[in-house]
Amino acid sequence: MKVRDRFLKKAWYAAALSSEVNAADLFHRKILGKSVMIYRLGDGTAVALHDRCPHRFAPLSMGKRVGDEVACPYHALRFDGQGQCTHNPHGQGHIPKAAKVDTFPLVEKYGFLWIWMDESEADLSLLPDYSPLDEGPETGVGFTYMNLPVNYELIIDNVMDLSHIDHVHGEIITTRGKLSPLVPRVHETDRTVSARWEWSQQPAMMIFAPFLPKPEEEARQYFDITWSAPASIQLTVAATQEPEGFENDINQYDLHTCTPADELETHYFFATRRNHVEDDAEYNAQKIAGMHAAFEDEDGPLVMAVQAEMGDEDFFSLNPVLMSNDVAPVKVRKLLTRMIETENHSSGGLAEATE
Amino acid sequence: MKVRDRFLKKAWYAAALSSEVNAADLFHRKILGKSVMIYRLGDGTAVALHDRCPHRFAPLSMGKRVGDEVACPYHALRFDGQGQCTHNPHGQGHIPKAAKVDTFPLVEKYGFLWIWMDESEADLSLLPDYSPLDEGPETGVGFTYMNLPVNYELIIDNVMDLSHIDHVHGEIITTRGKLSPLVPRVHETDRTVSARWEWSQQPAMMIFAPFLPKPEEEARQYFDITWSAPASIQLTVAATQEPEGFENDINQYDLHTCTPADELETHYFFATRRNHVEDDAEYNAQKIAGMHAAFEDEDGPLVMAVQAEMGDEDFFSLNPVLMSNDVAPVKVRKLLTRMIETENHSSGGLAEATE
Amino acid sequence: MKVRDRFLKKAWYAAALSSEVNAADLFHRKILGKSVMIYRLGDGTAVALHDRCPHRFAPLSMGKRVGDEVACPYHALRFDGQGQCTHNPHGQGHIPKAAKVDTFPLVEKYGFLWIWMDESEADLSLLPDYSPLDEGPETGVGFTYMNLPVNYELIIDNVMDLSHIDHVHGEIITTRGKLSPLVPRVHETDRTVSARWEWSQQPAMMIFAPFLPKPEEEARQYFDITWSAPASIQLTVAATQEPEGFENDINQYDLHTCTPADELETHYFFATRRNHVEDDAEYNAQKIAGMHAAFEDEDGPLVMAVQAEMGDEDFFSLNPVLMSNDVAPVKVRKLLTRMIETENHSSGGLAEATE
Repeated sequence: MKVRDRFLKKAWYAAALSSEVNAADLFHRKILGKSVMIYRLGDGTAVALHDRCPHRFAPLSMGKRVGDEVACPYHALRFDGQGQCTHNPHGQGHIPKAAKVDTFPLVEKYGFLWIWMDESEADLSLLPDYSPLDEGPETGVGFTYMNLPVNYELIIDNVMDLSHIDHVHGEIITTRGKLSPLVPRVHETDRTVSARWEWSQQPAMMIFAPFLPKPEEEARQYFDITWSAPASIQLTVAATQEPEGFENDINQYDLHTCTPADELETHYFFATRRNHVEDDAEYNAQKIAGMHAAFEDEDGPLVMAVQAEMGDEDFFSLNPVLMSNDVAPVKVRKLLTRMIETENHSSGGLAEATE
Repeated sequence: MKVRDRFLKKAWYAAALSSEVNAADLFHRKILGKSVMIYRLGDGTAVALHDRCPHRFAPLSMGKRVGDEVACPYHALRFDGQGQCTHNPHGQGHIPKAAKVDTFPLVEKYGFLWIWMDESEADLSLLPDYSPLDEGPETGVGFTYMNLPVNYELIIDNVMDLSHIDHVHGEIITTRGKLSPLVPRVHETDRTVSARWEWSQQPAMMIFAPFLPKPEEEARQYFDITWSAPASIQLTVAATQEPEGFENDINQYDLHTCTPADELETHYFFATRRNHVEDDAEYNAQKIAGMHAAFEDEDGPLVMAVQAEMGDEDFFSLNPVLMSNDVAPVKVRKLLTRMIETENHSSGGLAEATE
Repeated sequence: MKVRDRFLKKAWYAAALSSEVNAADLFHRKILGKSVMIYRLGDGTAVALHDRCPHRFAPLSMGKRVGDEVACPYHALRFDGQGQCTHNPHGQGHIPKAAKVDTFPLVEKYGFLWIWMDESEADLSLLPDYSPLDEGPETGVGFTYMNLPVNYELIIDNVMDLSHIDHVHGEIITTRGKLSPLVPRVHETDRTVSARWEWSQQPAMMIFAPFLPKPEEEARQYFDITWSAPASIQLTVAATQEPEGFENDINQYDLHTCTPADELETHYFFATRRNHVEDDAEYNAQKIAGMHAAFEDEDGPLVMAVQAEMGDEDFFSLNPVLMSNDVAPVKVRKLLTRMIETENHSSGGLAEATE
């Protein structure tokens, strides 16, 4: 019940990057406190099963593939991609009715494998549209993954309050102090919180300036960011030297998404698609490696220090002093809390009704 | 009370291999949650004391031997092998009445030091007879020890369900799939559970085939296994090419015994005596090293993964799907649970009666 | 409330050696369970602040100095040495009323920075006089620090019962068995416990013998030791060959002081001033290094083993067998317990009165 209380269950989480799960191997990841095994069938479709044999609880991901099936590493019960036991080498080979493994709906989109951890029917309409990641050459998009020993909401806070970038990060994405004074326009729906900042700076962020007509001169920029429940943030950042509008801007379209391993460990993924230098594989590799390093070296130590300082206390119970830059992340925390409470309440209702 | 609730107390546990406790040193081991010091008196007799000075709780095993006595490393109170304080260097040298250390009955047999952790009188009749380990040359018997971060019952499960060997272990002891289809004959007494499998395979297990008359041809084999409370399993495995019976078989007589350090840490010992190549010291060393490596490399990682997956949940509470190969280990778990419950209940009764 | 229950709060603890806090850096230490940042203002005065930004709880000690102020590493709120927020780079720069960081009174004396962790007014009269540490050349005094994963009272026990030195330490400070038989004179006040031992030994302790008129011959010696609440022990040890009195003795004046990081981690500091070889910097460095090594190599492993054996049990609840050498440390434990209980009780009363 503890996990249910703290995480939204009826939702899509990134279980893995598509590239993390190859054709041959059994992939393991802990998600919302549960061991999950993911592997690809012969036709390339990825499936997700509870990574626990129902016999003596060995992780199936330590087992062997037998075609599209997986044999438990301990006593060789075999299961198919639907979690059904198909072979029992013991005694007369009778397959017990209970010899089933839970499966989880899995959808492969935008370079990610998305998982639905709830027992209810998966609702594909709840997966946001990140199709811009798919549009363009392979060398114009990068993906990365890291694991952090922190609660996932601290990472969402980090991304939703972009005012930190002038203070935490280096020259390459500095706004030269222009971002912090701005109060973003914030917009909320029943499953999203968006914010947008616009400003001018001279020169533009170093990631964009070289690609603008006059690299040394002033440019107009924006950040546009949308959190969607439970833990995905789409972020676009752009620069232009046109007098108005952003039609021919230099930009990148990023997705940051967090998946709780448990309450104090998070799988953090991000992806970035840009509209410039799209065909340079080496530039592409450096780009995503640089973003990975920036988080790991700069945000990461801070977020971990905050986690250590907070312990297992709830954020609001510590009476944070909130400011204009907190509007978006606080709206996210409050909306997510309401959604979790609603889900728990209606599940409770359902449970009563069906008992 | 927690330890009492989960372990059988009125029972013999292997505290150490005889070879682990030499003539000079103070040996420490945690057993059933308690620190125990073991050392040998001048006449070779081993004694076991609570490894905690009653003064300021320093481990006596960090102290110094003074003949048959041990001086505490901190303030030099000295204790004899019966736990009696014999020397106090402080003040006028008065020895406080309470200056005593608990001792534990210890019996040296079959190459092991067996300990009785309960306060009741030790009952030697409860130590099973493993005298075959003593019979034969030194070069025909091997002993080993390893420490595992798992509950001891998971190791008992592993040994009691030998059907795992075709799936977990390599060519050297494969039954070529013959073992799993068999349902063993199981026999239960008030402190033991036995199982026996018989089959034919071609060739015999690699550990035996070279010593049979016709190494490449079919052989008849058996496993005979007896668990005795609390945590010892005697296992004989044999092969023969005679038409019937096992009188002139090639075999080995093994003892596996587990001693809980605590609920999630186990001392695992095993011994093996064989009736072939008995005089080859090098073969003997390789034999026991190979068995040690097989458990450490093959069973060990699985048992640890199962422990991680089970956390501190009770085995039956997780609703395992049980099969024909589980008959023996499940009978052990149930009998052991009943014995622990009976012990706790009668101890409770006794406590009430004497209060 | 847990910390309050186990530590004396209205008291001075050593937060750091003066030499640990330089002119430029932000210094972090956990004290009584709280993160504390210490740094020096431009005029050299050291200040202590809660090491937690009130915005999103990042440690300020990971931030940057801006003159006498510190900017938070995360979103750059800036605080002065009184904990007042002086700069907010966000939005219109409004400084929220609640944007304050708790500060702790800090006094620099005797080579230490002393901190008062309670919210009540700091009472300088409660800091004992250790001015002898200040008197004499720099090369006649040494300071050291170590961190130990034990409860601080176990270290106080260690120092208050000096009878351990013949059993734990080597030749250099042996009393040749003379100390243990002595029962010290013990004197108690409302915040102190003192003990004094006097004896003769031949030769004197090796740390003193070379500086006496007749190094090989008998000398009179004393230990004089005073614990002052909460956790400071002043210890003087001396040797003389005069027929009576200690007017021209060879001695050293030591201070041992413990600061709980939390219940199971202690900052242990000590200082030593001697009245001989006062002008030899190399001797001085070896002297304090030797004392550090003696504790780290000899007392430290014992105290840690005792902690492991005691777990989180209270000392008296384990029914220690107490002897003549325990008079002083037991008086300290009992007086400290009474002081903590009194403090909690009167705080409770105060809280009620002001609510």
